[in-house]
Amino acid sequence: MSLISDAGSGGLSRATSEQLFDNENRDLSLNERAALIDHFQQVRRETAALTDPLTAEDMQLQSMPDASPTKWHLAHTSWFFETFILRDALPGYAVFNRGFHHIFNSYYNTLGQPFARPDRGLLSRPSIEQIFSYRAHIDRHIEQWLIEEDVTADQAALFTLGIHHEQQHQELLLMDIKHAFFQNPAFPAYREDLDPFPDDMDDVPPIQWLQVPEDHYTLGSDGEGSVGNFSFDNEGPPHQRFQSAFRMASRLVTNGEFLEFLQDGGYREPRLWLSDGWNHIRQAATPGHPQAPMYWREIDGEWFQFTLSGLQPLDLTVPVCHVSFYEADAYASWAGQRLPTEFEWEVAAWLYCQKDARDKANLLENRNFQPIAEYASPDRHIQLLGNLWQWTSSAYGPYPGYRASRDAVGEYNGKFMCNQMVLRGGSCVTPRSHIRIGYRNFFYPHQAWQFSGIRLAGDIQ
Amino acid sequence: MSLISDAGSGGLSRATSEQLFDNENRDLSLNERAALIDHFQQVRRETAALTDPLTAEDMQLQSMPDASPTKWHLAHTSWFFETFILRDALPGYAVFNRGFHHIFNSYYNTLGQPFARPDRGLLSRPSIEQIFSYRAHIDRHIEQWLIEEDVTADQAALFTLGIHHEQQHQELLLMDIKHAFFQNPAFPAYREDLDPFPDDMDDVPPIQWLQVPEDHYTLGSDGEGSVGNFSFDNEGPPHQRFQSAFRMASRLVTNGEFLEFLQDGGYREPRLWLSDGWNHIRQAATPGHPQAPMYWREIDGEWFQFTLSGLQPLDLTVPVCHVSFYEADAYASWAGQRLPTEFEWEVAAWLYCQKDARDKANLLENRNFQPIAEYASPDRHIQLLGNLWQWTSSAYGPYPGYRASRDAVGEYNGKFMCNQMVLRGGSCVTPRSHIRIGYRNFFYPHQAWQFSGIRLAGDIQ
Amino acid sequence: MSLISDAGSGGLSRATSEQLFDNENRDLSLNERAALIDHFQQVRRETAALTDPLTAEDMQLQSMPDASPTKWHLAHTSWFFETFILRDALPGYAVFNRGFHHIFNSYYNTLGQPFARPDRGLLSRPSIEQIFSYRAHIDRHIEQWLIEEDVTADQAALFTLGIHHEQQHQELLLMDIKHAFFQNPAFPAYREDLDPFPDDMDDVPPIQWLQVPEDHYTLGSDGEGSVGNFSFDNEGPPHQRFQSAFRMASRLVTNGEFLEFLQDGGYREPRLWLSDGWNHIRQAATPGHPQAPMYWREIDGEWFQFTLSGLQPLDLTVPVCHVSFYEADAYASWAGQRLPTEFEWEVAAWLYCQKDARDKANLLENRNFQPIAEYASPDRHIQLLGNLWQWTSSAYGPYPGYRASRDAVGEYNGKFMCNQMVLRGGSCVTPRSHIRIGYRNFFYPHQAWQFSGIRLAGDIQ
Amino acid sequence: MSLISDAGSGGLSRATSEQLFDNENRDLSLNERAALIDHFQQVRRETAALTDPLTAEDMQLQSMPDASPTKWHLAHTSWFFETFILRDALPGYAVFNRGFHHIFNSYYNTLGQPFARPDRGLLSRPSIEQIFSYRAHIDRHIEQWLIEEDVTADQAALFTLGIHHEQQHQELLLMDIKHAFFQNPAFPAYREDLDPFPDDMDDVPPIQWLQVPEDHYTLGSDGEGSVGNFSFDNEGPPHQRFQSAFRMASRLVTNGEFLEFLQDGGYREPRLWLSDGWNHIRQAATPGHPQAPMYWREIDGEWFQFTLSGLQPLDLTVPVCHVSFYEADAYASWAGQRLPTEFEWEVAAWLYCQKDARDKANLLENRNFQPIAEYASPDRHIQLLGNLWQWTSSAYGPYPGYRASRDAVGEYNGKFMCNQMVLRGGSCVTPRSHIRIGYRNFFYPHQAWQFSGIRLAGDIQ
Repeated sequence: MSLISDAGSGGLSRATSEQLFDNENRDLSLNERAALIDHFQQVRRETAALTDPLTAEDMQLQSMPDASPTKWHLAHTSWFFETFILRDALPGYAVFNRGFHHIFNSYYNTLGQPFARPDRGLLSRPSIEQIFSYRAHIDRHIEQWLIEEDVTADQAALFTLGIHHEQQHQELLLMDIKHAFFQNPAFPAYREDLDPFPDDMDDVPPIQWLQVPEDHYTLGSDGEGSVGNFSFDNEGPPHQRFQSAFRMASRLVTNGEFLEFLQDGGYREPRLWLSDGWNHIRQAATPGHPQAPMYWREIDGEWFQFTLSGLQPLDLTVPVCHVSFYEADAYASWAGQRLPTEFEWEVAAWLYCQKDARDKANLLENRNFQPIAEYASPDRHIQLLGNLWQWTSSAYGPYPGYRASRDAVGEYNGKFMCNQMVLRGGSCVTPRSHIRIGYRNFFYPHQAWQFSGIRLAGDIQ
Repeated sequence: MSLISDAGSGGLSRATSEQLFDNENRDLSLNERAALIDHFQQVRRETAALTDPLTAEDMQLQSMPDASPTKWHLAHTSWFFETFILRDALPGYAVFNRGFHHIFNSYYNTLGQPFARPDRGLLSRPSIEQIFSYRAHIDRHIEQWLIEEDVTADQAALFTLGIHHEQQHQELLLMDIKHAFFQNPAFPAYREDLDPFPDDMDDVPPIQWLQVPEDHYTLGSDGEGSVGNFSFDNEGPPHQRFQSAFRMASRLVTNGEFLEFLQDGGYREPRLWLSDGWNHIRQAATPGHPQAPMYWREIDGEWFQFTLSGLQPLDLTVPVCHVSFYEADAYASWAGQRLPTEFEWEVAAWLYCQKDARDKANLLENRNFQPIAEYASPDRHIQLLGNLWQWTSSAYGPYPGYRASRDAVGEYNGKFMCNQMVLRGGSCVTPRSHIRIGYRNFFYPHQAWQFSGIRLAGDIQ
Repeated sequence: MSLISDAGSGGLSRATSEQLFDNENRDLSLNERAALIDHFQQVRRETAALTDPLTAEDMQLQSMPDASPTKWHLAHTSWFFETFILRDALPGYAVFNRGFHHIFNSYYNTLGQPFARPDRGLLSRPSIEQIFSYRAHIDRHIEQWLIEEDVTADQAALFTLGIHHEQQHQELLLMDIKHAFFQNPAFPAYREDLDPFPDDMDDVPPIQWLQVPEDHYTLGSDGEGSVGNFSFDNEGPPHQRFQSAFRMASRLVTNGEFLEFLQDGGYREPRLWLSDGWNHIRQAATPGHPQAPMYWREIDGEWFQFTLSGLQPLDLTVPVCHVSFYEADAYASWAGQRLPTEFEWEVAAWLYCQKDARDKANLLENRNFQPIAEYASPDRHIQLLGNLWQWTSSAYGPYPGYRASRDAVGEYNGKFMCNQMVLRGGSCVTPRSHIRIGYRNFFYPHQAWQFSGIRLAGDIQ
Repeated sequence: MSLISDAGSGGLSRATSEQLFDNENRDLSLNERAALIDHFQQVRRETAALTDPLTAEDMQLQSMPDASPTKWHLAHTSWFFETFILRDALPGYAVFNRGFHHIFNSYYNTLGQPFARPDRGLLSRPSIEQIFSYRAHIDRHIEQWLIEEDVTADQAALFTLGIHHEQQHQELLLMDIKHAFFQNPAFPAYREDLDPFPDDMDDVPPIQWLQVPEDHYTLGSDGEGSVGNFSFDNEGPPHQRFQSAFRMASRLVTNGEFLEFLQDGGYREPRLWLSDGWNHIRQAATPGHPQAPMYWREIDGEWFQFTLSGLQPLDLTVPVCHVSFYEADAYASWAGQRLPTEFEWEVAAWLYCQKDARDKANLLENRNFQPIAEYASPDRHIQLLGNLWQWTSSAYGPYPGYRASRDAVGEYNGKFMCNQMVLRGGSCVTPRSHIRIGYRNFFYPHQAWQFSGIRLAGDIQ
């Protein structure tokens, strides 16, 4: 059985950006350009909309080297279009501000040494007004380019990459502001007006086990597609894998279940932990604070969790989130299970996701900004897409046959293929048009500021 | 000869805050209250005025743990009045915001664990508007207190301490924003409209040596004074010292002289350096950057220095500034001289300062924000007050008979009497009514973000 | 094609320790016990022999937290037998020294908190004489146990693990003493009397490409075997893999080839490096030292390398060794190739290794203590076994179906399955009876004090 | 009153090394040479004798960057004589081993970059046998020089400095091996055969206060003297000081008194601590261990202290030792007293020490290796010399008129005159012929591995 062909006829199709359009030298039609403009404008508006609740001072914050200020996200995503599209493709284009090239380059060493990442929060100038002017400047010129110039399929692919790049930064923007606000003893809310737990419920149904039979599967994007389909280069090429039989949990692990692990002494039992994980949690321990997921706080014997709606009592029925890979793996050991490989996750998703899984998933547009308890609704109980990124036991590496291109855009994915673990599925802060079954997210095993959760798996003898 | 009696009849008199008013239990007269209101309002206005060139984003910046955001200075100085005056002295006073007590406490452990200093830049909330409201609230209630309530001499002394505390933070505010702006590759100017080198000149006159004879001197504030006179507790009590004969330089070391030291290999010759200084400069070395004073930059073979007016070509005729104690000491060794002790500095100042020295000095109100070349003017060539703080060879410690009080205000000075070196004289960012000959400033020997310079001294056999 | 069956009938067979003997509850025959005694004695003698060139002071050295003193290796390997065998299996056994349990436990958290690893070099007591007494005590009682007591198959498997554990520490002992001696400016030699480059030659033949066709392969140890066969639990269980066609280099990369990379600016070109690798080499840079493999030194324009025979001129014809994964990966990028996966390496080894590959390989018993140029000899030019461990592009993780046991011995392998990369093949300091094709060694990608080299691979379209 | 003249006619006279002999160009007499040989041999024998209880492995230990291996002390003191005497003064002298110059240079940057201090423990070669050969070689040639060559007064002064330098390292050797043995969980004893508390007693007499009247005093060595008298350059030149009236405690603070401080919450009350001290103890805190002096351990509710005779129950009647300046200062605050300045300490010592104070003091030759309770004996109850170094409140700096020489020996003292605090009096591990009233020892305020204790002082109004 070849999943990729099934998938092609099914819901979620995939294509690499390089081959997004059938003939890379041909020029795009007017319809295709109009679709690109639409997508671009929609994503740019969404980015700006996410900053509505924030002040200029909020947008200045950088609370750790891994995070960036909101301002910087706004400018860097514009820099991407300027650097990779406008400077080459739009005749006569004048760079908005020459100084921006250094400070808004993220990690493209090919383009010169980037500004030191931990210092991004020190750039009070340019001001947020100047950055919004920069965005408007880029918007205007991108539209001019799409309307007035010939656009090749290659350029369109690169441009589409830029749109998805901005969507990644929408998620980062929310992750980062959440982390920054958490440092403030007043625990400010990003949104005061939302119910973070819309589907609150009394009972969590027990985990059911989805069975997957042994077989040879073909996974990986072949890069064929049409406008609107997209995948990153790290999602391909297609390749065969043999998969033995396994089972995967029907739902994510809940706060209540994780609290049991904690109360059973899970954080004090080295046998449950990977060696690096055990060392990590011992070093990260703060005297006087019990170890727990990143945003949990115990106050006078009660557990709370910090959310984008501020500090809230811990809801035991929703999925546990902001756990590191080490925590996810230790929990799975404690539960007598294991995490799925990224291939197991993907095969299960192709087999079990309904056609409208993405439409029904708890994603950015739902404006929950939190995982929800969605077991009640029988038709979407699998939660494979949305809600939380799910740690897999797979180290992030190249698929067989993968080669990164050696130009600047080649630094996008390939150079991170070491020391990180794959997460799958998207989260409550992932844009809907950005997620797909084949999507490979990756973080270091100690990181937890992303919206990550735990799905269990096991062997079938 | 007793300097203190001379001084009493001379220009600059001194008094400890505790004994500023003759009878600590008596209530203040209306005139005295009016004078306090005047001083308070003038200082508060000055603080606000210093923020005029800054945006909300600028005021959010914290570029190192030693520095604080402008915002934080604005709030902390208000917190000081609220905590040490209003909460006790104004009946019915309602604290502006209970959360502020934790976040705007600087280092008064007696009042509860302060918010972690390196994280002050992460407080985007309260907003700058809220902080200005906080200031207005404090202003209003302080005035109410001074007008409506009985004010004891003790309270007036504590209140005067609060005013001088705010003046210290005016200087810190400028030091800190300079450091923050220096991190920005665009090197923004705090003030675009000023000539940083108003007295630029071609020739620097050679150093002349001020002679001071051997004698017994009495130094130290006795705390007697009247309204408007003030000194910190660390400036007293009066005590005798025997001083052997010495000489002190008539002017500060210039950029040009320090550049000679640098070009002579001064930073590469361990014999010139204190052991800790040598270790420090080796650890602080950045590959590819020649070692130099903190705000110097060599660009394409030319030397520049960063100022509050932005990056400027290095003016060789003005005093070298932002040098650490280690650099000052190594320079003195290279020049075959030494630094003065703080007692030598003070004796020379009492003997050589003219009556109007403070009026003529380059201080904050001059709005130079930079040391100037003031040798041309024969009547003020000594530069003992203003322009730059001058490193002394004296470790900061208690004067004989000094004891810090054990309440919260007792943490003001005494607990820092270890590992730091005394600087004397005030600088171009020190408020005029804040400086005096007996003033003891102190910094760690590696620090250089304060406006510090070098005055040489030597023995007379 | 199932490689595992071929292998079973071929040269190198494998078995997990748990299932080394066919029926775990049966007792061993006299012949089987005699074989165990032989193996044990041979390995214990070899360990002691490796310390012959060392003084008591040498054996005290610990030059970094990753390394251990020779003394500690000698004691820890004995502690392993005492803890996992004698305390349970030999009636009336009296522990040699109760204090040893804490200090010679390496990382078995299950057995109590181990002594801090970086402090092992601080244990001057027990003395080396006491440690040799400890070894003699263990030897005597192990022999007593094997002669006098019933020995179950389970116990024999655990005991065999102890023997292989000691062989691992033979290699570590040499790695660690090499690192320690390298810190001494006199660059002492471990052995003065050896020719480190016995096969020195003028010409290095060009790389040939071994072709491997696409197929389904079964890899992984099934744990069946007889006395004398052994594999670690991480080498199984058997499982299918689909492998697309690929090619692998016939020999390792040489010093001369790596020097070309270096001289071509390989260490200065970020495009060649993984992101973490680039960060690592920038942080590890020492001003004034060109970046190069760990034991290379440039002295007056000439390149040298430190070996167990002291500092030697760099021989361009022998394989480059002591490279990190980051260096290996960057070299492969520069050469337009890639590293093999561990599965590719293993499939190629099963296909191309001759029956006597292990007998002919440059392993510990050859006493070269260095990789040699062995291309001249056509019948062993493949160098798959011995000479140097070969970095693969595979992150170290569990094979499908692997589960670590949850007792103390279960900490042996499983808990390290994160953040490390697999190396294959054994090295010039690996004991001959310890290596096999299926052997999975693992180190962090930045580590280079192990004897690691580079073998290139590539796709076949 | 001039103390220095009193002292000259009294017990302890002092002289700087440079002026130890009346005419620096004259040659020494035979008697003078014989005295130098005697002193040299006695000190060299004592150094060797201190290593008797140590194995080669013990002598290899370096437990922190501040400490050095015994081996290194043995070699470095010999290197000092070779470098500063033999290479210049003995015609035809051949250096023992050219490699030693780099590795046994401590901190004389003038002589080339010293071997990295934290790596001294990594030098297993040269062996301890080679180092004893080195010592014998130096001994032989020093004797040859003193017998056969003309010896100028200047050379004799430098040579005498070398002898006192070696005595300093005798104390360091014991401090360092104590620290190293403390890292070993078996807490080995340096000497098994000694009673660490020979004067154990039931009652500690209350502190009496020694009164010192206000006066002008002349302190500081004038460098005049005869063979056998010696002082370091930092002890001069003579200079006047005005001292107001004060009182000083008749005895040191005991373990019992310090335990009261600890049990009263002294380590948890920020008001008692200097700011840097409070930060230091918070950073140094180990979870699960109560804060206490360096070598104290609480085991099952009982307090022990580590001594050179191993771990012993805490004797409440002996002076508390191994406290940092921060701890001494905090204790004094808690007790409502203060520490003396170094000048107060010296004035009190000149006034109150009996002529035979040094003879009766608990010094190295007593072989207690621990402070003792010596209050019982009325004629020596002042404990100013011996037992423990006593922290003063004086930062270590130059006396008025002090200038370090700029050759290599000039690095001996002057370059450390920053960030350290003066201790006075000598300790139970200080050689008798090495200590004197004017002796200025110095350590960083956080350090506690030296034998340091607490003497209280106070003002007299």
